[in-house]
Amino acid sequence: MPATASQKIHIHPLSNGLTLVAEEMDWLESAAFAFLLPGGCAHEKPQQAGLAALTSEMLQRGAGERDSRQFVSDLENLGADCSSSVSVTHTSFGGSMPQESLPAVLEMYADLLLRPLLPEDQLEDARLSCLQEVRAVEDDLSQRVMQELRRRYYGDPLGRSSQGRVETLESLQHKDVREFVTERMLPNKGILSIAGKINWPQLRDQVENLFGDWRPGLNEQLIETPGERGYEHIQVESNQTLVGIAIDGISYANDDYFQLRGAIGALSDGMSSRLFTEVREKRGYVYSVYAMCHSLRDRGSVIAFAGTTPEHGQDTFDVTWGELARMYSGIEQAELDRLKGRIKRSLIIQQESSPARAGNIALDWYYLQHVRTKEEIQKLIDGLTCNSINNWLAAHPPKNLTVVSLGPQPLQIPAI
Amino acid sequence: MPATASQKIHIHPLSNGLTLVAEEMDWLESAAFAFLLPGGCAHEKPQQAGLAALTSEMLQRGAGERDSRQFVSDLENLGADCSSSVSVTHTSFGGSMPQESLPAVLEMYADLLLRPLLPEDQLEDARLSCLQEVRAVEDDLSQRVMQELRRRYYGDPLGRSSQGRVETLESLQHKDVREFVTERMLPNKGILSIAGKINWPQLRDQVENLFGDWRPGLNEQLIETPGERGYEHIQVESNQTLVGIAIDGISYANDDYFQLRGAIGALSDGMSSRLFTEVREKRGYVYSVYAMCHSLRDRGSVIAFAGTTPEHGQDTFDVTWGELARMYSGIEQAELDRLKGRIKRSLIIQQESSPARAGNIALDWYYLQHVRTKEEIQKLIDGLTCNSINNWLAAHPPKNLTVVSLGPQPLQIPAI
Repeated sequence: MPATASQKIHIHPLSNGLTLVAEEMDWLESAAFAFLLPGGCAHEKPQQAGLAALTSEMLQRGAGERDSRQFVSDLENLGADCSSSVSVTHTSFGGSMPQESLPAVLEMYADLLLRPLLPEDQLEDARLSCLQEVRAVEDDLSQRVMQELRRRYYGDPLGRSSQGRVETLESLQHKDVREFVTERMLPNKGILSIAGKINWPQLRDQVENLFGDWRPGLNEQLIETPGERGYEHIQVESNQTLVGIAIDGISYANDDYFQLRGAIGALSDGMSSRLFTEVREKRGYVYSVYAMCHSLRDRGSVIAFAGTTPEHGQDTFDVTWGELARMYSGIEQAELDRLKGRIKRSLIIQQESSPARAGNIALDWYYLQHVRTKEEIQKLIDGLTCNSINNWLAAHPPKNLTVVSLGPQPLQIPAI
Repeated sequence: MPATASQKIHIHPLSNGLTLVAEEMDWLESAAFAFLLPGGCAHEKPQQAGLAALTSEMLQRGAGERDSRQFVSDLENLGADCSSSVSVTHTSFGGSMPQESLPAVLEMYADLLLRPLLPEDQLEDARLSCLQEVRAVEDDLSQRVMQELRRRYYGDPLGRSSQGRVETLESLQHKDVREFVTERMLPNKGILSIAGKINWPQLRDQVENLFGDWRPGLNEQLIETPGERGYEHIQVESNQTLVGIAIDGISYANDDYFQLRGAIGALSDGMSSRLFTEVREKRGYVYSVYAMCHSLRDRGSVIAFAGTTPEHGQDTFDVTWGELARMYSGIEQAELDRLKGRIKRSLIIQQESSPARAGNIALDWYYLQHVRTKEEIQKLIDGLTCNSINNWLAAHPPKNLTVVSLGPQPLQIPAI
């Protein structure tokens, strides 16, 4: 039981570069897995934007002895609720299920990754599904702002969006998908995490059997073009003005991560936070405002967003940016206390859910090559003081301000 | 542990009509509560639409010794993540937290319900927040369709939407809020459910102390106007056509509920369902389609929804309605097997989460005056056969077809 026993975490590296990371949660009847494969949209050639997403679609359309329909149907019979996603750096698969279904589901995902059918006659359906995603983002003005903000801040390829573009998606061919599978869906640096009620020796042996023969390929070095940063306005005759702000932050992998995360908590977490009380509560016309830490492996940023009516665009930017800048003058004890209460709750709730835990131990391994126990995180949080946070903030003033606005008119942005 | 021990469920009725329903989940470190108070938007006078929502907003702006800011801040310090909602029949409050915070949080909610400040100087802020909700729904075309569908199918007041309307919200006064609290926020038929790591005798005594003196009021009888049913088109020059369909269903309280729910599962749950494979997969222009059971205490409906491009509105309605009508000819064994897999998983996952369980035992008590254990539900599910489902469907053909469409042109709807 989590209340008393220490956490049982297991790490098993396979010789092909895949790492199995598992946590036993004996009091559950469920199990969950997460596959992190280091092939994301950053690995697409520029004229192939959307290929990782299309490949992920195609991988799920039949594998081994099962056609597309059979594959989906068998997962449902096993009570498995599975999903996939593509980020800049990874293609991910994951799911939760009754624990006794785990071995059968892992077998099916070994088929999916090692023996996918990639049926040519389903390429157009898969493409249509990807094109729908592109259109959904186009219709969602706040997503458009955030995509453009990441592109300007991180540059290429780390600022890419996984949906791709209509013109590149329409030009992709079946051989492109096959190539992306061969070259990028590899065990190298891959992570398979499993949390829930498991039998560790059996699980380890099964994973060796299923994935041990998966042959590694070359690790690709990304060639980077830095972001333009600065200010960009997207002219749209909309009924709202949206603004995204990015400045330098640090990665979750950085030892000081929780110093910055603590400050952002005071700024943006919950209804007592500065952004909620100073921006939203006092200004009924601001319908959304938040700030967050955004992490890549070797760098990070602070990203803020606000949505309002066109006549209040400038005022809303000024006060949101004002609060973000003021954060660097320091936070207060009462803010830190509230934050610790929030973190404690979320650690407990997360620790009680197998899918949440599977996702988190995979990310821990990716960022830290180590899985943090609840006690370790609690110790990090307990060690946070206003002093430690404020010293860090004072030593790392905001840099590389990047702003993207969308609406009927541009904003005045300060130079920093 | 849920794997072996039988569930520990406790029921304790207070003399004022409030029922405490609790489930011990000893293996957790969290606890969660849900308050169901039988005062929802169905209890508003017609010219007061939105009053229940405004009252719920005002109730959360300070109580007992705490002003609004202090109340929110103390909840955060306790690590409690709380929320509220208003439905046709209820105003609800709920939250999850580390188990040791539960007594303090219950004390605060006793203040909120029995000693709210309802500060007059915050009425305009609360109203603004309610008006934002109205505008958010207006901007969301699919919500507009579903609201209008419920209104036409259920009539007044059971088909109401909790947001209210701009003109009624603007006319509400502070005394209306005070009256709604006095007349409708009552212990009569109220439910307080708690799930997680609890000490039952202590919890029962604390709830008696906190809520035992809460005085009951009169139970109000709702006066109903039946829905118009039939077809309505909302003319909007949108880039999409949306259509909502309602027919007679049954309540969760009905012994046969799972017969209908099983059939709807075959129709709409998961990627092997009929709506997914026959409508969405074969027609790339249908971006959303689903069907569900909608339950009130003494009646229910089947509600379906589809979203598509304007040129495919008619075709999409025809095939969605076609599949819904075809369902009544019966479902197949393979469909039932998949469904049982899905239900098994969701029962397990739900049983592992204190907030999910608190919500469910409250609803069980509301509908059934009884809390179903996992074993009871499993037995009901195991008892489902194609025969039992198909016999029920054959005896209850679709009735009272109600359709609402939204888009640039109306549809042709069959008469049934």
